[in-house]
Amino acid sequence: MTRRKRRPARSAVTIPQLPWQQLSNPFAPIEVISLDHVEAIIDKAQQVLQRKGIRILDPTARQLLAAAGAKVDPSTEQVFYPPELVREQLVHVPAGFQLRARNPQHNLTMGGRSQVFAAVGGPAFCSDLDRGRRPGSFADLCDYFKLIQSLNILHQEGGMAFEPMDLPPQTRHLDTHLAQYRFLDKNAQAYPLGRDRTIDGIAMAGIALQLDEQQLKETPALLGIINTNSPLQLDVAMGEASMTLAQAGQVSCITPFTLAGSMSPATLAGTLTQQTAEVLAVVTLTQLVNPGAPVMYGAFASNVDMKTGAPALGTPEYCKATLASGQIARHLGLPFRASNTTTALSVDAQASYESQMSLWASVMGHAHLVNHAAGWLEGGLTASFEKLIVDAEMLQMMAATFKPIEFNDDEFALEAIMQVEPGGHHFGTAHTLERYETAFYTPMVSDRQNFENWQENGSRDTAQRANAIWKQLLKDYQQPPLDPAIDEALVDYVERRKEYYAGQAA
Amino acid sequence: MTRRKRRPARSAVTIPQLPWQQLSNPFAPIEVISLDHVEAIIDKAQQVLQRKGIRILDPTARQLLAAAGAKVDPSTEQVFYPPELVREQLVHVPAGFQLRARNPQHNLTMGGRSQVFAAVGGPAFCSDLDRGRRPGSFADLCDYFKLIQSLNILHQEGGMAFEPMDLPPQTRHLDTHLAQYRFLDKNAQAYPLGRDRTIDGIAMAGIALQLDEQQLKETPALLGIINTNSPLQLDVAMGEASMTLAQAGQVSCITPFTLAGSMSPATLAGTLTQQTAEVLAVVTLTQLVNPGAPVMYGAFASNVDMKTGAPALGTPEYCKATLASGQIARHLGLPFRASNTTTALSVDAQASYESQMSLWASVMGHAHLVNHAAGWLEGGLTASFEKLIVDAEMLQMMAATFKPIEFNDDEFALEAIMQVEPGGHHFGTAHTLERYETAFYTPMVSDRQNFENWQENGSRDTAQRANAIWKQLLKDYQQPPLDPAIDEALVDYVERRKEYYAGQAA
Repeated sequence: MTRRKRRPARSAVTIPQLPWQQLSNPFAPIEVISLDHVEAIIDKAQQVLQRKGIRILDPTARQLLAAAGAKVDPSTEQVFYPPELVREQLVHVPAGFQLRARNPQHNLTMGGRSQVFAAVGGPAFCSDLDRGRRPGSFADLCDYFKLIQSLNILHQEGGMAFEPMDLPPQTRHLDTHLAQYRFLDKNAQAYPLGRDRTIDGIAMAGIALQLDEQQLKETPALLGIINTNSPLQLDVAMGEASMTLAQAGQVSCITPFTLAGSMSPATLAGTLTQQTAEVLAVVTLTQLVNPGAPVMYGAFASNVDMKTGAPALGTPEYCKATLASGQIARHLGLPFRASNTTTALSVDAQASYESQMSLWASVMGHAHLVNHAAGWLEGGLTASFEKLIVDAEMLQMMAATFKPIEFNDDEFALEAIMQVEPGGHHFGTAHTLERYETAFYTPMVSDRQNFENWQENGSRDTAQRANAIWKQLLKDYQQPPLDPAIDEALVDYVERRKEYYAGQAA
Repeated sequence: MTRRKRRPARSAVTIPQLPWQQLSNPFAPIEVISLDHVEAIIDKAQQVLQRKGIRILDPTARQLLAAAGAKVDPSTEQVFYPPELVREQLVHVPAGFQLRARNPQHNLTMGGRSQVFAAVGGPAFCSDLDRGRRPGSFADLCDYFKLIQSLNILHQEGGMAFEPMDLPPQTRHLDTHLAQYRFLDKNAQAYPLGRDRTIDGIAMAGIALQLDEQQLKETPALLGIINTNSPLQLDVAMGEASMTLAQAGQVSCITPFTLAGSMSPATLAGTLTQQTAEVLAVVTLTQLVNPGAPVMYGAFASNVDMKTGAPALGTPEYCKATLASGQIARHLGLPFRASNTTTALSVDAQASYESQMSLWASVMGHAHLVNHAAGWLEGGLTASFEKLIVDAEMLQMMAATFKPIEFNDDEFALEAIMQVEPGGHHFGTAHTLERYETAFYTPMVSDRQNFENWQENGSRDTAQRANAIWKQLLKDYQQPPLDPAIDEALVDYVERRKEYYAGQAA
């Protein structure tokens, strides 16, 4: 773990925070299944790929796989993978990788014991206590980016925290990428929907980071979430995106969306098998495109609600599936992604207990990437301004839990123990005074007032306090410097591409 | 782990719950410190007991320890323990024990991988959304007992969930014990405040369970929380209670209240050392009273808020101290107790994330007893009706997480996977329909509605939904049968003892 130091001096930011740090998990992972079962799941997954195959809608991908020895049924577009093809391609996959950020101090490592916390990505709505739940706008998104930049515990933006619904769908990724590079100097995820948008992401990363194709290929700057269309289908947009990312040496984080009972069998063994099959299918494809292209095993296995068929997240099943997925990914030698999930509809008790269940499973499953680590609400339909703050507090608490307990004569404090009268107190000892300000984690949003003060101060719950915090963070936000020439080049790229897309639409 | 079966038929209770079960944790504990450090803490703790000693205010206890070889300073009442005295007495302590309940099906095991969830004990206030926070009353307490009985996931009542402030302090334990035996057939903790009250608890257990002294001594029915007056002091009430429990073969759960920076040094190494010293001091005393009397290592190490000196709970420090305490307790061969804590002032996001941090640390620290597992709010000042429900949900989720993932041909579901069209769904398959009702955990309070329905239904947050649930549970409550002769004998005992206390006061 990077050593954490307190800020040397107060910055303009008045909300207490841990400093930026890349995290390393000091604990052994929790193992929920045996090695035999890990191997059985991988074996069954290969049987599924061989006997049932996966439907791949993109013809180029099918051709590539056929040329490598897969059987293709042209009528159903199903591709059947011989187990040796999967095995041969798996050996190319790197066990970990670096990911560049605009500010090199914010570069990331994914692999080994490192853990990266990414902000939410993908919702159509955003919400806050003042303005309620609403379709996301570009102005909202820019504010959200400022908050992600301001929260030190967040390592990565989630590839469009929510959709700016006031911008045209075909070009909103361009405005989003420009905003990412303007408001953040942290790594931001790609928007991997089809070939064109993915190319735009890579091109803009090259401009923003001033890297040519070869440099980007050596050390990637973009990670794209590639969702299969479970069960056992890869659509054109995702197929194109994963091949484009692989070709350019960028990261495909391959994440089936397998809710047991709807998109996969109503058992965890079956769901983990299907998830593994889908991941291996796309991993194989990426390695055929570019052997050694970085990829990740993404887990998003949970279940549906037994009564309604609605997604159920942050559940015991999610927890076990995540921990088991980590074991499978490690056995395959693939970097691993999990998520902080909840179906809660407001920033309340359920929102945090489901998030905590997800977070402990992600962390103790040794997820290299904890996606949607902050801000996600309502099963991923909404990005909440208050949840962003509450999650950041939870993530900071996890980071502080990683910090090892120190042992030396000073820490054992026998002299202080000898000094204090039995039944007395340690408040005033030299030992306490020396370390009082830095000894313990300082929360952002947790309240420890007594009841009477809390009532006098308006009985504000956690969501209300979080509301005040994000407003303060926005007020204190400082834009990271961006070379005007780079900004201009990005703007130029965006304009040219908007013309291109306009031409396409015409 | 006890095998969990679904209820064979709907009972009168309409709230979905897991059935009663004693839990066994299938996961390896999280280890936050090395074996060397565990040993160093125990060694330093013995140095503290030898050099600084512990002030013991009860003269009988001091005499007993002096007779066994401890040095006593009569002027300061400090007792200095030679390390060999501690070691000699430790060997008598049982590694685990059974605890009887009025209903033998609710008997408990504490030891090995078993985990017991006890409801909150000790607050002066209770609260619910309708009536707010108020001093606890006896009527409130009886309702709370009914809920603890109704919630299958709760194994044990916490020894007076909150103080019935409308009853006289000297005899309220008698009314409370009577109510425990009337409204619950689960094990209830003792109210170990001084010799007389502890004797009453033991006598009433004997009456209620129809056991003589010897039978009770062989298998205990009472567990009492013995708090040292940290730092390094044991007051008369707690000293008397622990000796009385030990004499009768009942359980002393020895729990120092060490908040780093006030009742112990502002370091975790120092706090763990002091906590261990205090536990060992009282363990030694109990074994001198009755070798082999069951005792527990209770951890309640956390920290104070750096700005205000207020207790901070459910913190990263609490989490690490709890996990480390589990390692120390296991090394000493002592059964281990931890807690579900929070300083939150309402049943909101903070209440759950602090509880979850505490709970994961307790569970993964292999606490045999998770005390205050449900209902605790506001740093232990308040027992909340809604928090009881929310915590029970969290505990059920933990229990469901313990349930192993099953593996066999049916669970791997390859035939179902073969059957479903790529991109299709598993909703309607025979495999799904067969297990749809029982495959996944069914929540009590978690909401998975869509946003529109949720709004139409009043946008109720988790606390509001919990409010409806405890009211329903109270409505559905069924009093467990109690032999009228036993009830009469208990009433008779209570009346006689009230006369005794009245005589004392006069």
